[in-house]
Amino acid sequence: MDIVKPSTIAGVMELLPEDQLVFNKFKSIIEETFLENQFLPIETPLIEKDEILLAKGGGETEKQIYSIAGSSKKMSLRFDLTVPLARYVSEHFSDLNFPFKRYQIGRVYRGERNQKGRYREFYQCDIDIIGNGKLSIYNDALAPKVIYQVFENLDFPEVTFHINNRKLLNGFFESLGLEDSVEILRTIDKRGKIGDEKTLALLEEEVEDLSEKILAFISQEGENEEILEALSNFEGSVTYQEGLLELKQVYQYMVAFGIPNSAIKIDLSITRGLDYYTGTVYETFLNGYEDLGSVCSGGRYENLASNFSKNTLPGVGLSIGLTRLFYQVKDLGLLDKYRKPFTDILVLPMGEDYNLYGIEVEEKFKEAGLKADIYLESGKVKKKFAYADKLAVKYCIIVGEEEAKAGKVSLRDMETGDQDLMDLDLAIEKIKNK
Amino acid sequence: MDIVKPSTIAGVMELLPEDQLVFNKFKSIIEETFLENQFLPIETPLIEKDEILLAKGGGETEKQIYSIAGSSKKMSLRFDLTVPLARYVSEHFSDLNFPFKRYQIGRVYRGERNQKGRYREFYQCDIDIIGNGKLSIYNDALAPKVIYQVFENLDFPEVTFHINNRKLLNGFFESLGLEDSVEILRTIDKRGKIGDEKTLALLEEEVEDLSEKILAFISQEGENEEILEALSNFEGSVTYQEGLLELKQVYQYMVAFGIPNSAIKIDLSITRGLDYYTGTVYETFLNGYEDLGSVCSGGRYENLASNFSKNTLPGVGLSIGLTRLFYQVKDLGLLDKYRKPFTDILVLPMGEDYNLYGIEVEEKFKEAGLKADIYLESGKVKKKFAYADKLAVKYCIIVGEEEAKAGKVSLRDMETGDQDLMDLDLAIEKIKNK
Repeated sequence: MDIVKPSTIAGVMELLPEDQLVFNKFKSIIEETFLENQFLPIETPLIEKDEILLAKGGGETEKQIYSIAGSSKKMSLRFDLTVPLARYVSEHFSDLNFPFKRYQIGRVYRGERNQKGRYREFYQCDIDIIGNGKLSIYNDALAPKVIYQVFENLDFPEVTFHINNRKLLNGFFESLGLEDSVEILRTIDKRGKIGDEKTLALLEEEVEDLSEKILAFISQEGENEEILEALSNFEGSVTYQEGLLELKQVYQYMVAFGIPNSAIKIDLSITRGLDYYTGTVYETFLNGYEDLGSVCSGGRYENLASNFSKNTLPGVGLSIGLTRLFYQVKDLGLLDKYRKPFTDILVLPMGEDYNLYGIEVEEKFKEAGLKADIYLESGKVKKKFAYADKLAVKYCIIVGEEEAKAGKVSLRDMETGDQDLMDLDLAIEKIKNK
Repeated sequence: MDIVKPSTIAGVMELLPEDQLVFNKFKSIIEETFLENQFLPIETPLIEKDEILLAKGGGETEKQIYSIAGSSKKMSLRFDLTVPLARYVSEHFSDLNFPFKRYQIGRVYRGERNQKGRYREFYQCDIDIIGNGKLSIYNDALAPKVIYQVFENLDFPEVTFHINNRKLLNGFFESLGLEDSVEILRTIDKRGKIGDEKTLALLEEEVEDLSEKILAFISQEGENEEILEALSNFEGSVTYQEGLLELKQVYQYMVAFGIPNSAIKIDLSITRGLDYYTGTVYETFLNGYEDLGSVCSGGRYENLASNFSKNTLPGVGLSIGLTRLFYQVKDLGLLDKYRKPFTDILVLPMGEDYNLYGIEVEEKFKEAGLKADIYLESGKVKKKFAYADKLAVKYCIIVGEEEAKAGKVSLRDMETGDQDLMDLDLAIEKIKNK
């Protein structure tokens, strides 16, 4: 038979079991933190109708989408969890309780050109709070609080939330007499990557003599309270004042929700580029690892589902790109502390006659709360120990003729090679105490 | 703006949060049981290359597959978890420890015509044990043991494993001088649905005068030990004897692994149709709900990955179709006992001035181990209580001017409407004791 070379498609994550265990641990810590904060789970299909996915229209999105071939109704794989959320909330509107706090953890698909750090299939872990008609500004502080707890529970390096407000920025541009701010926002968003000098050069092309004023505004540094104070001294438009009030409140409530002041940085150069955010915007950095870029981003939007519903559904959300984050943490060599032995103890029957006795013994170890496994294959003793070595198990329990007759077991320390015949209870006690 | 009617594609599962919570609970019980039994997690991409998915060739499969449109390399959505497992084990062969015990829980895709009980996207929960070259017959008992524990931990109705052996059947047909048994196996497999009479009629078309002999063989009834005894009295071919020995051992070891005899039924009419099984085959029924069909099926195969590897990789596995099972259990009205209150206590600040005090109070409830939430929206009192009612929360904690001044809270019983001002600690104690 012809052998097909076994390989995955490019740009997807596939882990060996020892890494999969750590990935799953991260995922479950994230999920538990969402649940503790009273966010409800939803799970939407991987495939959605094109009329849903592309309702907004959008050139870039359409190019990246994975479409299903040959179906009579056009459908594709979801490229984020936000469009499915908009569809879900609209479809099930009358069955939901608003504000609707939901989380969704799942894979999304983008037909990206394959390059390092870009994935075609990757996990997103999203929380959003959706209001019916209105949504209080408290939620803009609640969302980062949950994310703060996530990173705390993950035992990751400390995070810093960079927060800003789109209304504040747009209001500021209005005050300068600038009407169309889309290009400016896009340029500002690059500052973190390209630095002040290049940002200034780009701004000059767009707004000429206003460029220095804009750069000075977005690069204000200092304690959060100082920046807020400075912003209050500028007499901006109504939009500006609205944005400033929101920013103040979000900052104040984030602190009230228990996020330390040191983990919050009012950063007027954060804009979230061209996204659909209309108020608060966030990016999140791991202290000491700012080069990784934002590990959790999001913001406030005025209306989630204008394409699917006549209801106005304002919301605020944050999203962790877990696949990328996992590889980053792995590349930094930070995974080791999450690795725990999968198996505490391996029972090795010395011949098939002792398998049933071995099964009994294994069961006793399990009842004692130890992670026990048993090797039931026939073969040479060497093969059995090779299995134990590959499992990296610290102790083996040998059961053969001598042990079965005496109703005992031999406990073997795999590091030292010491092996002693003893009562099962003693073996359990010894392993538990180590 | 034009409104697009929000709806999912047909044939997929999408749940409201209260059902999603139960589904997730089932999923996590299944996963924990797999882990406790030392099965390792793997997760493969949803999309695989067509050369992988279709390596076996196969008309039916190819028709049902969802292909990705317009990609230069042909690729499609996985239609089961077994082909990806074969690819995974072949690709990562040198990094795995054999026997390799793995589980995978994930969604698979089939372009089925939409009809009740058929899903285009559905969850499979698979366990398989893969050997390198050889795999002991003990594993054929270990797999159902794990599944037995799954259903026990799910607190479902008791299960019965119907077990059989393909070698035994094929050996029996050999003894009758029948060479090609594929058609006969297919007919026998229908017996559970169509009954003895129709089975006999179909068999008559295929094997004429041997039909009664075959029907008599496959419909042997009695205690397991009796059937094994009767089978021993038939002098079959070498294959027959091999199959009989395996069946005996699997039965014996299933009992040794702790499955009660009453949960095992040697059933010679179980064949698993046209699947690639070569030894043990299983179907699993919920006692009293046999009409649902098998809720977990599988068997032993001689070589998992002949298309991807020169290594011989025998295996044995079982698979739970969780999406279908979930809907069946729901239709039977059995979900209620799994529903738990998502929120124990809702804090209701009576005006924005009391939000921060409310946040403090909520935090105290959380620290006390209660699932607390807070309603921070502005609006009328009626709206706040409507939210609490929809949440079906038993108690609310009211914080307004009086409570904030006194540093106390008002505990409101949502059933009786009774409301009392008290110390926070007392409120926590009262709720915990109820």
